[in-house]
Amino acid sequence: MKIFQSIGIAGIGLLGGSIALAVKERRLAERVYGFTRSSSTIEKALRVGAIDVPVESFSKFIEECVRVMLCARRGPNIERAGVISKTKPHLLFTDVGSTKKMIVETVENSFPPGHNFCGSHPMAGSEKRGIEFSDPSLFSGKTVIITPARNSNSHAIETIKKFWQNLDAKVVEMEASIHDEICAYTSHFPHVIAFLLIEMLDNLADRQQVKECIGPGFKDTTRIAASDQEIWSEIFISNCENIIGASRRFKKNLERIEDLIEKKDMESLKTWIEKAKKLRMEI
Amino acid sequence: MKIFQSIGIAGIGLLGGSIALAVKERRLAERVYGFTRSSSTIEKALRVGAIDVPVESFSKFIEECVRVMLCARRGPNIERAGVISKTKPHLLFTDVGSTKKMIVETVENSFPPGHNFCGSHPMAGSEKRGIEFSDPSLFSGKTVIITPARNSNSHAIETIKKFWQNLDAKVVEMEASIHDEICAYTSHFPHVIAFLLIEMLDNLADRQQVKECIGPGFKDTTRIAASDQEIWSEIFISNCENIIGASRRFKKNLERIEDLIEKKDMESLKTWIEKAKKLRMEI
Repeated sequence: MKIFQSIGIAGIGLLGGSIALAVKERRLAERVYGFTRSSSTIEKALRVGAIDVPVESFSKFIEECVRVMLCARRGPNIERAGVISKTKPHLLFTDVGSTKKMIVETVENSFPPGHNFCGSHPMAGSEKRGIEFSDPSLFSGKTVIITPARNSNSHAIETIKKFWQNLDAKVVEMEASIHDEICAYTSHFPHVIAFLLIEMLDNLADRQQVKECIGPGFKDTTRIAASDQEIWSEIFISNCENIIGASRRFKKNLERIEDLIEKKDMESLKTWIEKAKKLRMEI
Repeated sequence: MKIFQSIGIAGIGLLGGSIALAVKERRLAERVYGFTRSSSTIEKALRVGAIDVPVESFSKFIEECVRVMLCARRGPNIERAGVISKTKPHLLFTDVGSTKKMIVETVENSFPPGHNFCGSHPMAGSEKRGIEFSDPSLFSGKTVIITPARNSNSHAIETIKKFWQNLDAKVVEMEASIHDEICAYTSHFPHVIAFLLIEMLDNLADRQQVKECIGPGFKDTTRIAASDQEIWSEIFISNCENIIGASRRFKKNLERIEDLIEKKDMESLKTWIEKAKKLRMEI
């Protein structure tokens, strides 16, 4: 079902590539324009049929396109939103970044009322990076959080919502600041934890013995520690306050549990684990 | 290939049940004796064909058996090792507990030199508990750490090693105290972390919004938080010192990272993540 004549994807990595492939597979648009700074990525995107029309510069790209998905990292996305505000402020566009407050505030501060932006955060992806890992069914059955800005045009919000639904995602609307606070607990701080758990192995004596003592539990717990350093250092900094808040609360709780373990308080430990287990089974 | 006339399994949960089923499937023993305190578990074990001969009391069980696997929790296992030391001190036996120092020391302090005990810790299992989740291929391709005691008979060590190899496991020998130290980092402390990550969700405002912000990464990271409270409170207490040591080191490292995030030190964060990522990809 064609819903657009054309769509433009700026940044063709795991997410941008997966969106492009899904659009092509479902024939949601006649033409997919692609912009990225890497010429080898453009070649790969053309080869796998993710895009139809490569565009060399971002200014030309927004000249051509009427709907744009910003799928690069947060830094370039915010920069590009700035370019859009100056040259085509009524362009319909969204981004797919993991933190939402900063891009939403950028739009609120630099776009006219009734603009056509609404943020998106697909709760999909993996620790992998790059178009070679893209997958047209990446969003199927997943949730996409959309975060409108103040003064987002309701028609734009609806269009973006419908776009994700056409990729078989479930769409949930949320305030950007609430999204960022919750994601500090459900994603960002857990990444900090996973990197730290892996880092600690390095201090143990015998690497081979350490490897023997690693079971499937540890592998699952630290799967996300294979994530990309560019993307995650940026996320940690852009959601700094919420992550530090989560970290402080975590340390306080950890000290409470250290105390129970040291006192060998079996009953309180059991009660604590049982409560966490119950909560885990609900999610 | 039959390697034993008979084998006795005391404690028929996920691990004991999986061992019993694997023994039956591979015809490694003619008769499997089963002992457990729960009559409903005995019934289930008979129904799925995990055991041949149920035995009512532990004293009768060790009277009947010449090779015994202690597959209950650490508490009952240590108690039963005590009974063995008094009534059949030359019985060949192992246990499958997640911490090894305490049972090994118990044996060292109460068994005659040349005894036939050697500890085992299969790096397999799951957050599930109970014979209903047992699986005859649970140990295939997995590592089993064996931890001899001082004065373990070398023939017993070999027999137990061969037994696990017949279940398609890779066997690695390790000192009990080293095993416990490493497992604090690769399993026990990560469980503390997973329970804490889940617990923190409870303090966030809107449960439904929290659920929307949970992606596959968080689910993997916290899968082990659905683990059993009896088993894990016992592990935390029995490996108390190593876990507290890991926790203190972790907190120090976390504070270092909090500091980098607060200072928005992108380069140091990138270096840190990249190193962890590399290590994660090696395991």
